[in-house]
Amino acid sequence: TVNGVKLWEDILETARFGGTPKGGIRRLALTEEDRQVRDWFVRACEALGCTVSHDSMGNQFARRPGTEETLPPITMGSHLDTQPTGGKFDGIVGVLGGLAVLRTLHETGRETRHPIELINWTNEEGSRFAPAMLSSGVFAGVFTEQEALDTKDREGVRFGDALEGIGYRGVEVCGAHPVAAYFELHIEQGPILEVEHKTIGIVTGVQGMRWYEVTLTGRDSHAGSTPMRMRADALVTAARLIDAVQTIALEHGPDAVGTVGLIENRPNSRNVVPGDVFFAVDFRDPDDSIVQKMEEAFYAQASELAEAAGLTLEIARVWDTPAVQFDPECIASVARAADALGYPARRIVSGAGHDATYMAQVAPTAMIFVPCAGGLSHNEEESAEPDDVTAGANVLLRAVLETDMR
Amino acid sequence: TVNGVKLWEDILETARFGGTPKGGIRRLALTEEDRQVRDWFVRACEALGCTVSHDSMGNQFARRPGTEETLPPITMGSHLDTQPTGGKFDGIVGVLGGLAVLRTLHETGRETRHPIELINWTNEEGSRFAPAMLSSGVFAGVFTEQEALDTKDREGVRFGDALEGIGYRGVEVCGAHPVAAYFELHIEQGPILEVEHKTIGIVTGVQGMRWYEVTLTGRDSHAGSTPMRMRADALVTAARLIDAVQTIALEHGPDAVGTVGLIENRPNSRNVVPGDVFFAVDFRDPDDSIVQKMEEAFYAQASELAEAAGLTLEIARVWDTPAVQFDPECIASVARAADALGYPARRIVSGAGHDATYMAQVAPTAMIFVPCAGGLSHNEEESAEPDDVTAGANVLLRAVLETDMR
Ligand SMILES: NC(=O)NCCC(=O)O
Ligand SMILES: NC(=O)NCCC(=O)O
Repeated sequence: TVNGVKLWEDILETARFGGTPKGGIRRLALTEEDRQVRDWFVRACEALGCTVSHDSMGNQFARRPGTEETLPPITMGSHLDTQPTGGKFDGIVGVLGGLAVLRTLHETGRETRHPIELINWTNEEGSRFAPAMLSSGVFAGVFTEQEALDTKDREGVRFGDALEGIGYRGVEVCGAHPVAAYFELHIEQGPILEVEHKTIGIVTGVQGMRWYEVTLTGRDSHAGSTPMRMRADALVTAARLIDAVQTIALEHGPDAVGTVGLIENRPNSRNVVPGDVFFAVDFRDPDDSIVQKMEEAFYAQASELAEAAGLTLEIARVWDTPAVQFDPECIASVARAADALGYPARRIVSGAGHDATYMAQVAPTAMIFVPCAGGLSHNEEESAEPDDVTAGANVLLRAVLETDMR
Repeated sequence: TVNGVKLWEDILETARFGGTPKGGIRRLALTEEDRQVRDWFVRACEALGCTVSHDSMGNQFARRPGTEETLPPITMGSHLDTQPTGGKFDGIVGVLGGLAVLRTLHETGRETRHPIELINWTNEEGSRFAPAMLSSGVFAGVFTEQEALDTKDREGVRFGDALEGIGYRGVEVCGAHPVAAYFELHIEQGPILEVEHKTIGIVTGVQGMRWYEVTLTGRDSHAGSTPMRMRADALVTAARLIDAVQTIALEHGPDAVGTVGLIENRPNSRNVVPGDVFFAVDFRDPDDSIVQKMEEAFYAQASELAEAAGLTLEIARVWDTPAVQFDPECIASVARAADALGYPARRIVSGAGHDATYMAQVAPTAMIFVPCAGGLSHNEEESAEPDDVTAGANVLLRAVLETDMR
C-alpha cells in the first residue's frame, strides 16, 4: 500500500502553487504557477529514481524502468492545472496518487516487467484554453498538434507561445509514446459515492459532451435615450438563451446537463445597451443521442430568438466528445483491487471529462474515483478525505501491478 | 456666429486622444487619454486669452473676464470623457462648441458684463466610476466630495487616486464656484430631431433615472458532474432577471426604458456552473412614479426568483436622479436664439443624463440638442452633421449673450 501521510503532505505542499485565500487553487494552464508545480513534479519524481521528460505539448512523463524495457509502459496520470477558482484535488489526486505509487515501488524496491510511467497532462481543465483535455487529445490523435498550438486563450495568447514561455515545449512528438495501459485516479466531482457511502468508484466510462460558442451581435446604443423598440440588445437575447439551456437540459431526462459557464458582454458599461455578447454552452448526457437532441433544440431556439430580436447569430460546435466505454480488463483490474483491499465500491459513469477519455482511444484504460464532500468540484471549497485519497491510490497501485503481471 | 470649420477641426483633432480603429473614442475618465485631452483643453483655452483652473474634483474652468468682474460667470460646459466604445460627439460637442463660442468672443473682441466660463466636467459617463455626472453632482451638493473621491472602478481603483494620478486634483473646493447660469450643448442621443427634421432641440428637462447593483450568490460547481437539481446557478437567475428588466420596461408605457448594460460572471469558465454574478440595472422614465413602479416590480421578481433558485440576493439602489425641469428663462433664451437664427426647433425632454441635470439645482440652466444620425449614441459609429453642430454652437453663443444682457 501507499504512504497516505506523504501523499496528503504532497497535496498540501503543491497547493501553495497558485493557492488562494479561500483555500483553493488558481493554477491556470501554462501560467507561472503551472510552471512552478511542473518543476516540483520533476524534482519529486527524480527523487524517486525516475527519469522525467516532456513532449511537444508539454505533457510530462516520469519513467521508472521495468525489467523488460522493450515492453511499453503501464501509465498512470491526470493533471495539475486547475480552474480559476479550483480546488486542491481535481486532477491533483491522480498525479500525486501516481507519485505515491512510484514511491511505494521505489521504497520497496519492487521490480515490474513493464516500465511504469506517471503522466501530468497539459491543459486538462479547458478553462484557459478550450477545449478541455487538449493535450491528451493531441496524444490520442483527436486534435492535431498544430491546431492545439494555435489555440488562443480569451486574451488572444497562443497556447504554443504560452508553452514556450514557461519552458515546457519538448522535442518528443506528442503521441509518439507507446502505452500498454492507462489508469487515472480522480475525485468523483459528483455526489453519488458520498451519498452511497462507497469509497471507490469503478469508472466504466465517460458521458458524451459537446461545447458551443455563441456570438450575438446587435447594436450598442444609449440606455437612456434609445426607446425599447429601437434596440438591438444582444444581452437580452443571450439571457433568454441561457434560460433556454437550463430548460432544455431539464426536459431531456434525469441525466442530461446543460450549462452556460462563460459570458462576455460588450462594451459592458452600465448605460450602454449591449451590442455584442459571446457565451459558451456545455451539454452532456451518457447517451449521445440525447446530446444531439439538446443541440437541435438549442440551435432552433437560438435562431428563432436572434431573428425575432434582429440580431446576427453565430454558433459553432467547438468540442464533440462522444460517450466512451473503458476497457473491460482494466475495469476488472480496478474492481478486483477494490475488492481485495476491502473497500466498498460501485460502478459509475463519469460526468466530467478526463484525460482517460482520450487515452481510451489509444490504450486499454480505466479510472478510479474517490468521493469528494457534497459532490462539490470546480469550487475552492472542494474537499476530500485523506483516507479516501489513500484508498484510491492503493487501488491504483494494485491495478497497475496486476496489469503488469498479466 | 461661430467658426464651424474650426469647431469641426477641433472635434477631429481631439478624437485622436483615445481614438479607436472603428472611428470611435475610448477615453474613460481619469485615464492617460483623459489627461491628454485635458492638457489640450488648457492650451486651446489659453490661446483664446482664457485663464484655466481646475477644482478638487478635476472639473476644468476656462474663464474669459467680463466687464463687471464681481458678477458670477455665465457658464457653458459638458464633458470630454467617453464610454469604452464611445463616439466623437457625446459631451465633446458641448465642450468644443463652448470653445467655439469663446473663440468668437475673443476674435471679435466682444465684451460681456459677466465673465464667461467653459467647464469640462470630470466623469460624466459613469462608465468607469459609477454613477454618472459624478463631479457636477458634487458641484451641486448631490454627492459629498469624500464619497466621490472614495468611489472605486470595477478594478478597485479609487477615483481620488486616479485623479491624483493624472495630476488634475485642484485646490479650489468643488462647488465653491459661483454660477449665474449654465448652458449645455449636446447631441440628442435619440431619434426624435432627425425623424422630425429639426436642427435644434430646446431641452426642457431630463427624465428620472435610477441605477441598481445586483449580486446573486449561489455555488460554483462542475458543469459535467453536478445534476441540474443540485445546482445553485447564479447566471441562470441573472439571465431571468435581465429578461425581467426588458419585460418590466415594455409593460410600463411608451417612454419607460430598462437596461442591463454591465454583467460580471464568476468564475466565468466554460465548465463551471457560475456561483456568483454581479449586474447593474438602469430604469428611466420622464415620470418618476413610473420609475418607482418599475423598481418595485423588479425588486419583487428578483426576490422571488432568487429564493426559488436558492440563491442569496443583494440589491442596492446606487443612483436616484429624479426628473428635472430646466429654468423657464434659460429655456426661453434657447428658443429665441433658435428662432432668431432661423433653425427648425422643437421642445424635447432628455432621455440621457447630463451635467445640466445637477447644475439645474444650483443655477438657472438649459440645454441645446442637435441631431445625431439614427439617434445612435454610446456607439463608435455615433455621427453628427457639421452644420448641425455649428447651428448648436450658434444657439449657445446667442443664448449666452442674451443672458448676459438680461
Ligand atoms: N475533470 C475535470 O474537471 N475536467 C474538466 C473537463 C470537463 O469535464 O469539463
Ligand atoms: N449623455 C450621456 O450619455 N450621459 C451618460 C449618463 C447617462 O445618461 O447614462
